[in-house]
Amino acid sequence: MTDCNVTFLPHDRTITVPEGENLLRAALEAGVHINASCGGEGVCGKCRILVEAGEVTEGISEKLDREDLEKGYRLACLSRVHEDVTVRIPVETGVDSSVMHMQVTPRRTAVIQHPDFESLKEEGVFISPVEKIYLELPPPEPQNNMPDVTRLVEYLKLEAGEHKLELTLPVIRKLPKILRDNDFKLTLTLVRPVRDKGKTIIIDLQGGDITDENYALALDIGTTTIYGQLIDLSTGECLGEAGDFNGQISYGEDVITRLMYAEKPGGLEKLQEVVVATINGVLEKILKQSSVDRENIATITFSGNTTMTQLLLLVDPSNIRRAPYVPTATMYPPFRASLIGIEINDHALALVFPQVSSFVGGDIVAGVMGSGMYLNEELTLFLDIGTNAELVVGNKDWLACTACSAGPAFEGGGIEFGMRAAKGAIEDFSLDPLTFEPMIFTIGDVRPKGICGSGLITMTAVMFEMGVINNRGKFNLELGTERIRKRNNVWEYVLAWQENTQIDRDIALTEPDIDNLIRAKGAIYSGCLTLLEEVGLTMDMVEHIILAGGFGSYIDLEKAMTVGLLPEIDPDCVTFIGNGSLMGARMSSLTNKIRQDVVEVTKRMTNFELSETPSYMDNYVAAMFLPHTEIEKFPKLKERMAARKKQMELLDSSR
Amino acid sequence: MTDCNVTFLPHDRTITVPEGENLLRAALEAGVHINASCGGEGVCGKCRILVEAGEVTEGISEKLDREDLEKGYRLACLSRVHEDVTVRIPVETGVDSSVMHMQVTPRRTAVIQHPDFESLKEEGVFISPVEKIYLELPPPEPQNNMPDVTRLVEYLKLEAGEHKLELTLPVIRKLPKILRDNDFKLTLTLVRPVRDKGKTIIIDLQGGDITDENYALALDIGTTTIYGQLIDLSTGECLGEAGDFNGQISYGEDVITRLMYAEKPGGLEKLQEVVVATINGVLEKILKQSSVDRENIATITFSGNTTMTQLLLLVDPSNIRRAPYVPTATMYPPFRASLIGIEINDHALALVFPQVSSFVGGDIVAGVMGSGMYLNEELTLFLDIGTNAELVVGNKDWLACTACSAGPAFEGGGIEFGMRAAKGAIEDFSLDPLTFEPMIFTIGDVRPKGICGSGLITMTAVMFEMGVINNRGKFNLELGTERIRKRNNVWEYVLAWQENTQIDRDIALTEPDIDNLIRAKGAIYSGCLTLLEEVGLTMDMVEHIILAGGFGSYIDLEKAMTVGLLPEIDPDCVTFIGNGSLMGARMSSLTNKIRQDVVEVTKRMTNFELSETPSYMDNYVAAMFLPHTEIEKFPKLKERMAARKKQMELLDSSR
Repeated sequence: MTDCNVTFLPHDRTITVPEGENLLRAALEAGVHINASCGGEGVCGKCRILVEAGEVTEGISEKLDREDLEKGYRLACLSRVHEDVTVRIPVETGVDSSVMHMQVTPRRTAVIQHPDFESLKEEGVFISPVEKIYLELPPPEPQNNMPDVTRLVEYLKLEAGEHKLELTLPVIRKLPKILRDNDFKLTLTLVRPVRDKGKTIIIDLQGGDITDENYALALDIGTTTIYGQLIDLSTGECLGEAGDFNGQISYGEDVITRLMYAEKPGGLEKLQEVVVATINGVLEKILKQSSVDRENIATITFSGNTTMTQLLLLVDPSNIRRAPYVPTATMYPPFRASLIGIEINDHALALVFPQVSSFVGGDIVAGVMGSGMYLNEELTLFLDIGTNAELVVGNKDWLACTACSAGPAFEGGGIEFGMRAAKGAIEDFSLDPLTFEPMIFTIGDVRPKGICGSGLITMTAVMFEMGVINNRGKFNLELGTERIRKRNNVWEYVLAWQENTQIDRDIALTEPDIDNLIRAKGAIYSGCLTLLEEVGLTMDMVEHIILAGGFGSYIDLEKAMTVGLLPEIDPDCVTFIGNGSLMGARMSSLTNKIRQDVVEVTKRMTNFELSETPSYMDNYVAAMFLPHTEIEKFPKLKERMAARKKQMELLDSSR
Repeated sequence: MTDCNVTFLPHDRTITVPEGENLLRAALEAGVHINASCGGEGVCGKCRILVEAGEVTEGISEKLDREDLEKGYRLACLSRVHEDVTVRIPVETGVDSSVMHMQVTPRRTAVIQHPDFESLKEEGVFISPVEKIYLELPPPEPQNNMPDVTRLVEYLKLEAGEHKLELTLPVIRKLPKILRDNDFKLTLTLVRPVRDKGKTIIIDLQGGDITDENYALALDIGTTTIYGQLIDLSTGECLGEAGDFNGQISYGEDVITRLMYAEKPGGLEKLQEVVVATINGVLEKILKQSSVDRENIATITFSGNTTMTQLLLLVDPSNIRRAPYVPTATMYPPFRASLIGIEINDHALALVFPQVSSFVGGDIVAGVMGSGMYLNEELTLFLDIGTNAELVVGNKDWLACTACSAGPAFEGGGIEFGMRAAKGAIEDFSLDPLTFEPMIFTIGDVRPKGICGSGLITMTAVMFEMGVINNRGKFNLELGTERIRKRNNVWEYVLAWQENTQIDRDIALTEPDIDNLIRAKGAIYSGCLTLLEEVGLTMDMVEHIILAGGFGSYIDLEKAMTVGLLPEIDPDCVTFIGNGSLMGARMSSLTNKIRQDVVEVTKRMTNFELSETPSYMDNYVAAMFLPHTEIEKFPKLKERMAARKKQMELLDSSR
C-alpha cells in the first residue's frame, strides 16, 4: 500500500493518507471542513469538491450533472484517493483565509497500549498460574513398588525440584491408567501457588508429552459485552478473540436493572445461566478460530465489575444497590470453571479478579494491574467511563478509587437521537465557521441513524468553541442558520435532514441532550477532583491519565478537555488501554506475578464513597458548565477562545 | 443385679456369676466340663446336673422324667441362677478328682480397651478437625461498609484470633442471607489445618448459635461389614452406632474377587455405588437412634483396607492384586463426602485414613493410631486377623508392617462345617478328659449350625492338649470314642449328632479342617516371626500384643497360644481393641492430633512384602505343627503337656 498526498485548497493544507482513503475522512484528518450530512452515502450532495490535479476514483453521483463532472466536481464522501491529488473546496467568496485555521482540529486519540509480553519474559515472570510439566517415570518393580501417587510425587521432587504438592481426587483416579497406557510417560498440569510457600496442585494428567499445548482463556465480563481471548501460555500469543453482547441485556440494560431482576424468584439463577451461555458461545467462536483442543485450556481468568462477578458466581448481589452498598466478597477462591457451567475441561481452573467495593470491581482492578499503573512513579489518574465511571488515582505507593454514576449519556441514553457506538452513529463532526453547516462522520460511513457518546462530546465541544452554544449549553440564536430551531418547545441543531438519514425524521442535537452531557461530564470531573482532594491533591498534579474501556478508546482527547470531561493535560501523557479488564485478565493468565500482587494492590486501593463526601456536590455544581465555572482551570481552551474572538472581530470589521 | 455363688461338685469349684446366668455358661467360666452338644436348647439332654443346695429356675425338659425332677436333676443349659446354689455333675464312678483339674480352663479374653477421651481433653488435644464457632458481627453502616466476607474474616481475626482463613464458594453464596436473616449472628463450621501453618477453611454457616450441634461420623469400611458411629464433637460421646454387611459381598466374598469384579466393564462403578448404598443405610440407622439433624454432621472419617478405600473413592484398584502390588495412592486429599454419593450435608468433609501398601491399609493405620501403639515405649506386635492378617511391630521410634494371606479358615471358610461368627456357630468347647464327650457353646445359645473361627481354634487347642489329636493334627484312634470316625475316607470328630443340630447332618471337625487351621495359624505366626527377623528381633522380645478386628475380639488367648497362632506371652500384656479401624476413625474425629501424626506415622511404617522375603517359607514350614516344630518356643504349654502326661499315667496306674 502506497501513500498519497492530498492538498486541500484554498486552505493549502496537505495531508498524506494511505491509498484508497475516503476524501471526506482525509479532510477531517487534515482539519478541513467540508459540508456533509449524509454520513458518506452521497445522498445529501453537499460535499462537492473540485479535483484540480490528479484523479480520484468513484465520487460520482446523480447529485452531480454531466457539466459538473466534466469540470472535475466530485462528491468528497464517495471519492477515494489513489494518487497525489489537489482538490478545491468551494467556499463563500470573500471569506478570509484566516478563518480556515479556526476549523476542524484533527481528532486526537492515542494508540492503544498493548501489554509488553516480551519484557515479561525477560524479567523471568512469564510464569502462568497453570503450567505443564513432562515426566518419564520408572515403572514399578518388585523392589520399587511404591504407590503410583508416591512415585509421581517422589519423582517430581527428584527431577523437577517440586515440593509441596497436592493432588485432587479426580487426578488420583486418572493416574493408574494414564501411567500404564503411556509407558509411564505423562504430562502434568500444575496450578502454581499464589505465595511462594503455598502448595502446587496437580489438576490434570495427560499421556505423553503435551507440554506445548497449554492454553488459557481471558474473559472480560462486561455489563454490555463479553470479550474473550485464547492465550497460548508458551508464547503469550493471542490465538483467537471474540465477543458478544451479554445475554443478560434482555433482563435489564444496566447494572441496576439487573440487580433488580436478580431479586425476583429465580432471577439470580436465570442471569447466571444466561451469562454462562454467552460465555460458552464466545468460547465456541474462539475455538473455531484456533485449532486448539478444548481439553488443553487449563485456566480461565474472569474479570468483571462487582455485580457481573457476583451474578457469574451465583452470589446474591442484592446488597450492592442498597445503602451502605455492601458487596458479598472482594476475593473469591479459585474453583473449577465447569462448576458454574462453563463448557470446558472438568479440571480447568477459574480465577476471578478481586473487587474493591460495590462499584469498583474486578474490571477496574484488572485494568490497574494490566496497565501497570500500580508500579508507576507518576501520579496517575485511571478512568473507565461508561454509564458508571470508575476512577483510580495513585502510583506505586498508594491508590485511591471511587465510582460515580455518569448517567447513560455516554452510551447514547437520555439523548433524543442517542445510540450506542454502532453502524450509523455520528461519531465525528465539524462545523463551517461561517455558515454553521455540519460535516458529519458515521460509523460504517452510512447515512446517520443517531448520535453516539463520542460524537456527542465532539459536537458539544465544536459548537461551544465556535460560539454556537454558550457555557451553559444554550444555543446562540443570532447565527442566522435554519439548522437551529425550536421544536416541541425545545431548541435544537439539525445535524441531518430527514432525507439524508436512515430514519424518518431530521436528526438533531437538543439543548436537553447537551444538558445531559454536561451533567455526565460534570459528575466525572467532580468525581476526579473530589477523589484527588480527599487525598490532599489537586487536578493539576496529575502527571498521567489512563483511559480504559470502549468509550475511552474512541474519545477525542482535545474535545473531551474542551467540554471539561478531562482536565487539560499534554495529550502525550494520556494512555489509552482499550479494554483494560480483558488486558488484565490476559496478563494474569501469563504471569503469576499479577496474582501475587493483586491481593496486596486490592487492599491498597482505598475506596471513597462520593455520596459520603460533602465536597462532591459542590464540585459537581461547579462543573456544570462548559468547560467549568472557572475557565482558568482550562488555560489552553481559554487562549483558543480568546484568539477566536479576536479573529471574528477582525473578520466582522473587514466585511 | 446381685451376684450369686455357684459351687460345682465334685470339683468343689465356686464361681460368682450375675443373677440370671445360664448354668452351663457358669460351668464354662468355672472351668468345669459338662457334656452338652445341642448348644443350650435342651435337646440333647446330656447336661443333667443335680441341684444339691439352693434352687435354679427353668432347667426343666421332657428329657427329665418326674422322678429325676423330684431328685433335683435339671438340664444345665436351660437352668438360670438366681441365688447361691450348689450343683453336682454326675461323673463316672471312680474318676480321680485330680482329673477334674485337667479340664476346661476359663476362657481368657481381655476386656476391650476403649479410647480414653477424658485424657485427650485433659491433654488439650480434644480438637476436632471440624469446629464450630459462634460470632456476633456488627451490621454494616455507611462508615463501615466492608464486604460481608471481609467483615467476617476481620472479626474472626479480632475476636477469635483466627488467621489464615479460606472460604469456599458455596459458603460465600450463603453468607449475605445468613447474616441478614439472623441479625448478623451466626455459627461457622471450620476445618482445621493439619499443620499449624495451614489455613483454616470455613465450610459452612448457620444462623444463630448452633455450636453445640457438631457431629462427626466415624466409618469402618470392612470387606465384610461396615460399621459407623455418630460422635458428639462437644463431648466425645458416641450417640449412635450401627453396622451392616457390605453390599459388595454380592459381587465377591473377599478382596480378590472384588478386585476381579472391579475390572469388568462398569464393575468399579457398581461396587462403589453398592458400598455407598450400604453406608447410607448405616447412616440412616444411626440417625434414627439419635435425634441428630443430618445437617449438623460436619465430617466423616473413613477407614478401610487399601482395596475398600480405592473402591469407595472410585479409584481403579486393578494393580493391587498384580505383582508388584502397587496401590494407586496412600494418601487422599480431604473432599466433600457428598461428591461420592454420601447422603449428607453438601459441605461435610470426608477424611480418609492413609494406607501403607496394597495389603496394609487404612484400617490398620487407624488401629495403630487409635490404639496409641505409635506412642508406646514397649516393643508391640499389632495383629489384625481375618482372611488376610496384617501385622505391625514397633514402638514410638519405628514401625514395620506386613500382611499375609491366612486363608479363609478363621472366617469359617474351607472348614467342612465352617461358618461366620453368627447365631448357631460353635464358639466355645470343652472335652471330658475320660469320655471325650464334648461341651459346646453356640452364639445365641441355639442348636449348632456350624463352627466359627474362634470355635475352631478352641477345639483344636483342647483336642491337642487332651491328646485327641497329635502335633500334626491327626486323630488319636485309640481313645475308644464313637465320636472319632472315618467318613468319606476322612477322619473326623462328631461335635453334635444330627438330632441336636439345626441341620440335617452330624456336625463334625475333620482332619482337613484342622489342617486348614494349622496352615492359617502357621502363616500368621511365621509372618510375625519373619517381620521381627527382618528388623533383627526375635519373638520373645515382644512386650505387648494388640489384637484388633472382630475375630481378634473373640479369640481365646490361651487357646490361640496353644495352637501356636500367637506366641506365648503373659495374657496381661495382650490388649484387645476390637474394631481398631472404627476406633481410629472415632479418635481422628475427636482430635486433630491424629491427623497431624498420621502422615508421619504412615511414612514411618516400613512395609515388607513376605513374598520377597526368602526366610518366610522356612518359618512357615516350621510353624506347620501344633504349636510349632519347636515346642520349646511354647514353654508353658510344654509344661502343661508334661504335667498332663504324668497325671494320665498316674490315673492309668491307679485304675
